[in-house]
Amino acid sequence: MVDHVSVGLLGLGTVGSGVVRMIDSNREELQHRVGCPVYIEKILVQDIQKERLVSIKEDWLTQKPEDVLENTGIHVVIEVMGGIELAREYITLALKNKKHVITANKDLMALHGAELLQVANENGCDLFYEASVAGGIPIIRSLVDGLASDRITKIMGIVNGTTNYILTKMDKQKRNYEEVLKEAQSLGYAESDPTSDVEGIDAARKMAILSTLGFSMHIHLDDVNVSGISKVTQEDIEYARQFGYTLKLIGNAKKDNGKVEISVEPTMLPDSHPLASVNDEYNAVYVYGESVGETMFFGPGAGQLPTATSVVSDLVAVVKNMRLGVNGKNAVGPQFSKQLKEQSEIQGKFFYRLHLKDEAGAFSAITSLFALHEISLEKLIQSPVNSTGFAEVVIVTHGTNKNQNNKVYNLLKDSDVVQEIKSHYRVEGA
Amino acid sequence: MVDHVSVGLLGLGTVGSGVVRMIDSNREELQHRVGCPVYIEKILVQDIQKERLVSIKEDWLTQKPEDVLENTGIHVVIEVMGGIELAREYITLALKNKKHVITANKDLMALHGAELLQVANENGCDLFYEASVAGGIPIIRSLVDGLASDRITKIMGIVNGTTNYILTKMDKQKRNYEEVLKEAQSLGYAESDPTSDVEGIDAARKMAILSTLGFSMHIHLDDVNVSGISKVTQEDIEYARQFGYTLKLIGNAKKDNGKVEISVEPTMLPDSHPLASVNDEYNAVYVYGESVGETMFFGPGAGQLPTATSVVSDLVAVVKNMRLGVNGKNAVGPQFSKQLKEQSEIQGKFFYRLHLKDEAGAFSAITSLFALHEISLEKLIQSPVNSTGFAEVVIVTHGTNKNQNNKVYNLLKDSDVVQEIKSHYRVEGA
Repeated sequence: MVDHVSVGLLGLGTVGSGVVRMIDSNREELQHRVGCPVYIEKILVQDIQKERLVSIKEDWLTQKPEDVLENTGIHVVIEVMGGIELAREYITLALKNKKHVITANKDLMALHGAELLQVANENGCDLFYEASVAGGIPIIRSLVDGLASDRITKIMGIVNGTTNYILTKMDKQKRNYEEVLKEAQSLGYAESDPTSDVEGIDAARKMAILSTLGFSMHIHLDDVNVSGISKVTQEDIEYARQFGYTLKLIGNAKKDNGKVEISVEPTMLPDSHPLASVNDEYNAVYVYGESVGETMFFGPGAGQLPTATSVVSDLVAVVKNMRLGVNGKNAVGPQFSKQLKEQSEIQGKFFYRLHLKDEAGAFSAITSLFALHEISLEKLIQSPVNSTGFAEVVIVTHGTNKNQNNKVYNLLKDSDVVQEIKSHYRVEGA
Repeated sequence: MVDHVSVGLLGLGTVGSGVVRMIDSNREELQHRVGCPVYIEKILVQDIQKERLVSIKEDWLTQKPEDVLENTGIHVVIEVMGGIELAREYITLALKNKKHVITANKDLMALHGAELLQVANENGCDLFYEASVAGGIPIIRSLVDGLASDRITKIMGIVNGTTNYILTKMDKQKRNYEEVLKEAQSLGYAESDPTSDVEGIDAARKMAILSTLGFSMHIHLDDVNVSGISKVTQEDIEYARQFGYTLKLIGNAKKDNGKVEISVEPTMLPDSHPLASVNDEYNAVYVYGESVGETMFFGPGAGQLPTATSVVSDLVAVVKNMRLGVNGKNAVGPQFSKQLKEQSEIQGKFFYRLHLKDEAGAFSAITSLFALHEISLEKLIQSPVNSTGFAEVVIVTHGTNKNQNNKVYNLLKDSDVVQEIKSHYRVEGA
C-alpha cells in the first residue's frame, strides 16, 4: 500500500499559494483523513526569485516543467496556472506519465474536458476538477454522487461572482452599471478587462461543465446561448422590483424528453425563488431532480482559500483512491448523446421595455402584434408620453416558445411605431 | 468482478416504496452509473396481504427476517423500517453476515451509530446513512468528502421540517402555535404525537450525527442541549420581526480551540442570515469552514422520493465500492476525543421578554441586575403598564457567556419586581 504521497504544483499564484498553505497547516488532519502523509515535492513557477506570500522551502521551486511532469517521485499534479494551451499540454503529459491530475481550470475543462478525461481513463488516472465550478461549493461531487440516483431535469446557477456583485450593488444601492463596475475593479472583484465575466462567457463555461455532468450528455461551450449584463440599466432593475422580480445573471439548463437547452442570460427571477436572495459575490447552484425536487448549494464562488478547499478535497479523494488502488476506475462517461432543443421547443416568459413613437394607435399596434402570434400578456405598464416625445411600455408575456417570441421581437424591431427596444430579458416562471 | 447486485429491504412503508419505485423506474440510468444491473430480491414486511401503492412482484415479500438477513443471494440490505431495538438487531446481523447496509434511521444512528459503524468495519462492510439527516440534501457526503480538507468550526441547521413549517406559518400568517400545529397534523406534516418534533428531539438526533462528522469527534445525543418550540408565542415572533430577526428552531454546533457546544433551540436569526429565508417544510444546513467560509445546503428534509433519492445514492456508492472491491475500506473514524465546553465558555446574545410588576424602581432594578453581571444591553423596549397591571420589557443583550446569563436568568426569576419571564431565547450574532 502507498505509504506517502508526493504532490507537484503547476503555478503558485493566488490559488496555488492557498493550496500550499492548506496542505501545510492542516497536515495532521489530512494525514488522518487519508491514512498517510502528503508532501509537496515541486512547484513550477515562472520566476524563482519572486517574493511569495506563503512560506515555501527553497528546493520546491523550479522553472523547468519536466521537474514536475517527468518527476518519478511525484504522484499527483495540481494545475493552478490557468490558461488553455499550455495547461492542456502539461496535463496531457502528466496523465501519460501516470500522474493523477487535479485542476481548477474551468476554461480548459469547458473546452477540452472530454478529451482530457479520455486521456486520464486510458492511463488509469484520476482527473478531478471540483474547483473549476463555483469555487468553494462541492457542486460537482453533489451532482455526481449525492444526486446520483435521481434524474436531474433542471440546473440553474449564479456561477459568476463578479456579475452577481455588480447586479446586487445596482439593485440595493440604485447605482448604475459603469459606476459599480469601476468599484468592483478597484476592489479586485472584476478584472481590468472584464469582458469574460460581464458578457457571461465565464458563466457559460461553468454551465457547460455542470450540464454535462447533470444531464449525462456531452455539452460543449458552443451549445450555450450567452448574453451578458453590460446593457442592464437601473430602469430595468426598478421595473423588475416593481413586478416582484430580481434581475440576476442566470445559467439555465433544462432537459425535457431527452432534449436540452442551455443559456446564460440576465433573467428576472420571482423574489420567492431560492436564487433571488443570493447576493454580493456569492454563488449558488439550484438543482431540480425528478425525485428529490428542489435543492440548492450556496457558497463562495471564488477566492484563494475557498478554491483551495475544493482542490485539496479533490486531493483527499485521489489519495484515498491511491490507497485503495482504484484510481481511474470510478469515472463514468456521458450516458446519452447530445440532443439540443429547437427554438420552438424552448418555453419561456419574456420581459420587454419599449419606447413607442407618439402616434395614434401605436399602443394597440403593439398589443395586436403579440396577440397575432398567440402570445398573451401577463403584465403591462404604459407610461404617458414624456417631454422627449416617446411613451414607455413595459410588458411581461405569459409562457410562449422562443420561436414565436423571436418573430415578435423582430417585428417589433422593424415596426414603424417602435422607436427602440430598450431591453428584453427572459423571465423565470411557469 | 461483481456482475449483478441483489438488494433486500427491511420495511415497505413510505420511504421503502419510494426506494422500490426509484430502483425500478431508473433501472437503465442506475445500471449505467454502477456498471451492472441491480435487482430487488426480498422485502421484509409485517403483512404480506396488505395492499401496496407501488408495483411489486409477489415473491419479493416475506414476513421472515431470515429471508433477508440470512439470504446468501443478497448483497445489500436497506433498512427503512424505523424504530430502534429491532432495527439495531437486524442491521448488526446483516453486517455480521457480510451484507452492506444502508439506513435512513436517524434515531438509531444518533444513539448507536458508533457501535454499528464499528461492526461494519470489523466485517469489511459499508454502512451508509445519508438519508438519516435532511432527507434529500446530500449533506453527509458534503461534510465527509466535499469539505474534507477544511477545518469546520460551525454547523447550523434547520433540520426539522415540521417545526420549520409551524414557525413559518406563525410568522407569515400571524397565527398561533396550537392552530398551526393542528393544521400541520391534518396535512400530515406533523404526527398525532408531535413531541419528538416540536420539542427538538428529532433535530437533536440529526445534530449529533452532523457534528460527529463535521468535528471528527464522537458526539452523543445526550451532549446536545435541547429545547423546543411549543412555548413560542405570536408576541415573540412579532418582537423578533421588529428587531430585524426571524425566529427559527436552530441546531447550533460550534467548535473553538478543540472544544464544542451543541444545542437545538428556538433562535433569533438576523434577517440577512442565509438560514433566515429557509421557509415552510424545507431544511437547510449552514456550514462554516476556516478556509471555505460560509456555505449552505438547501432542500427537502423529508418526503418519500427525496429520502429515497438519498438511499439510492448510497446504494450507488455501495455498488461502486463492490465493483472495485473496496467496501468498508474508506471509513474514517473520529480523529479527536470529545471535549465539551463549560457554560462559561459558551458565548451568546440573549432575548428576554419580561412582565414587571407595577412598582416604582422595577425597571431600574432589572437593568442594574444585568449591569452588575457585566451584561450590556443592545436593544430594549419598555411598554407602558397595561390594564392587567404589569409592564412588558423586552431586552436583547450584547454578547456574554452562558454562565453569566444563567445567573441573571435565575435572579430575574426570583426577583420581587418580576412577575414572569415570558420568554427567553438565544440570539445569533457576534
